[in-house]
Amino acid sequence: MNGTLMIIGGGEDRTGSMDVLKRFVELAGGPTQPIAVITAASTVPDDVWGMYAKAFAELGVPGATHVRIERRAEAEDDMLAHRVAQARGIFMTGGDQRRLAATLGGTQLERAMRQAYLDGGACIAGTSAGASALCTHMLSEGKAELAPEKGAARLAAGLGFVSRVIIDQHFSQRHRINRLLSAIAQSPFLLGAGIDEDTALIVRDDGIEVAGTGNVTVVDCRRSRTNVADIRAGAVPEMLDVRLHLLPAGSHFSTAGDDAPLADFISYLTDRN
Amino acid sequence: MNGTLMIIGGGEDRTGSMDVLKRFVELAGGPTQPIAVITAASTVPDDVWGMYAKAFAELGVPGATHVRIERRAEAEDDMLAHRVAQARGIFMTGGDQRRLAATLGGTQLERAMRQAYLDGGACIAGTSAGASALCTHMLSEGKAELAPEKGAARLAAGLGFVSRVIIDQHFSQRHRINRLLSAIAQSPFLLGAGIDEDTALIVRDDGIEVAGTGNVTVVDCRRSRTNVADIRAGAVPEMLDVRLHLLPAGSHFSTAGDDAPLADFISYLTDRN
Repeated sequence: MNGTLMIIGGGEDRTGSMDVLKRFVELAGGPTQPIAVITAASTVPDDVWGMYAKAFAELGVPGATHVRIERRAEAEDDMLAHRVAQARGIFMTGGDQRRLAATLGGTQLERAMRQAYLDGGACIAGTSAGASALCTHMLSEGKAELAPEKGAARLAAGLGFVSRVIIDQHFSQRHRINRLLSAIAQSPFLLGAGIDEDTALIVRDDGIEVAGTGNVTVVDCRRSRTNVADIRAGAVPEMLDVRLHLLPAGSHFSTAGDDAPLADFISYLTDRN
Repeated sequence: MNGTLMIIGGGEDRTGSMDVLKRFVELAGGPTQPIAVITAASTVPDDVWGMYAKAFAELGVPGATHVRIERRAEAEDDMLAHRVAQARGIFMTGGDQRRLAATLGGTQLERAMRQAYLDGGACIAGTSAGASALCTHMLSEGKAELAPEKGAARLAAGLGFVSRVIIDQHFSQRHRINRLLSAIAQSPFLLGAGIDEDTALIVRDDGIEVAGTGNVTVVDCRRSRTNVADIRAGAVPEMLDVRLHLLPAGSHFSTAGDDAPLADFISYLTDRN
């Protein structure tokens, strides 16, 4: 039984209606199911945990587990890994995706997450840095203010729950379309997905859905024409025929309909590896 | 002999290397040719004129003409219209495009501009509000901060030098992609072109070119799928298969090559009416 992915663009509401977090709890099977919160992306894990502990308590979760890992060795702990493997909801908080990937990648804890996801049907959620880290090719840093720029976005190895799609977060709020285009101009066989704050892209076996209050923007350069290979670093590439899809909250698309514009995007996301 | 259009995204350099203004003077036939500056978009026409008078003087233009029109009746002046018809470079400054269209549209002065353009081979330039006003369907106002919104962008009747394309300006600097998408979601048979500051889209009979320091972004919803007709005003439309083209400064495309991604965009622009 495959689980669910919940790719959250950061800044999800934690004090008001908490629609995104509420949805996470539902996808985990309800408030009585075991939930684990991984704060490894953050340099202030206790503060972050405090915030989520409060939010989940308000949502009726009796006791979520704080997976507090600062060093890689801690992610090899058997007891902790066992606990994560049993969780039905695993939530990775924000911080720095490089810290998260470096701490968890290839450890027992990561294997436990994968086991929970692939065998236990768990919901794996990541917000902000936690969302970026879900990817095989993780957008790790970069800035492209007014236009895409060759080399502006850096990729690093991520946790690999999502392949062939690069995730960016805080997308509209931080005007990151140029950063994401910089990344896919260079790697046009990957699709790009920008997730707004307080917004989740939910991936199930049978399709995808956008929840929360913002939008998901998908960019696709697979059939584009660009001169990016020929220009110097920092220059703006010519890009013709970029395809863009805007999926507002409330959108859902099933895996049926092979020739639809989003068919490949959905198939890349739902392809478990 | 058809003239040239120079569609400038505002904020063109007026004190340094002045590449965009220099190019305008060249397209007008050089500094000794008659140049007219129309400040009708502005509520401080004398200040704006002062700035351009200085810039053109520095570029070796001996005496540009200030076309200072505050009321529609002034645009029916025979002498002034004659002077504009003789100009080889006509530059419309920034301000408010609604003021510009309301003051000039359908007047003798507008006919004089068209005569200079179609018969005299003049270069017609517009910057900022002056750029928007070149269109038949003029983007007159609107704001869409984080996402396209139904009804966020308003169209008004413009001067009609450019048909089937909606121009927006200060494009990347003011993050206006959502405003432009709002407009073309509603009117998908029109193409959208967003011009950055200090950047000009130059339209000649044989093709288009981007000059200056920024980029031109073209958006095309003609083959898109959207629910915009079914949602309430202010809601975010689902938009699938929007095509986007990024043309950096230095790009040029000829009218040859019918199946190229930009063929229709070029043909719409070069189609004189």
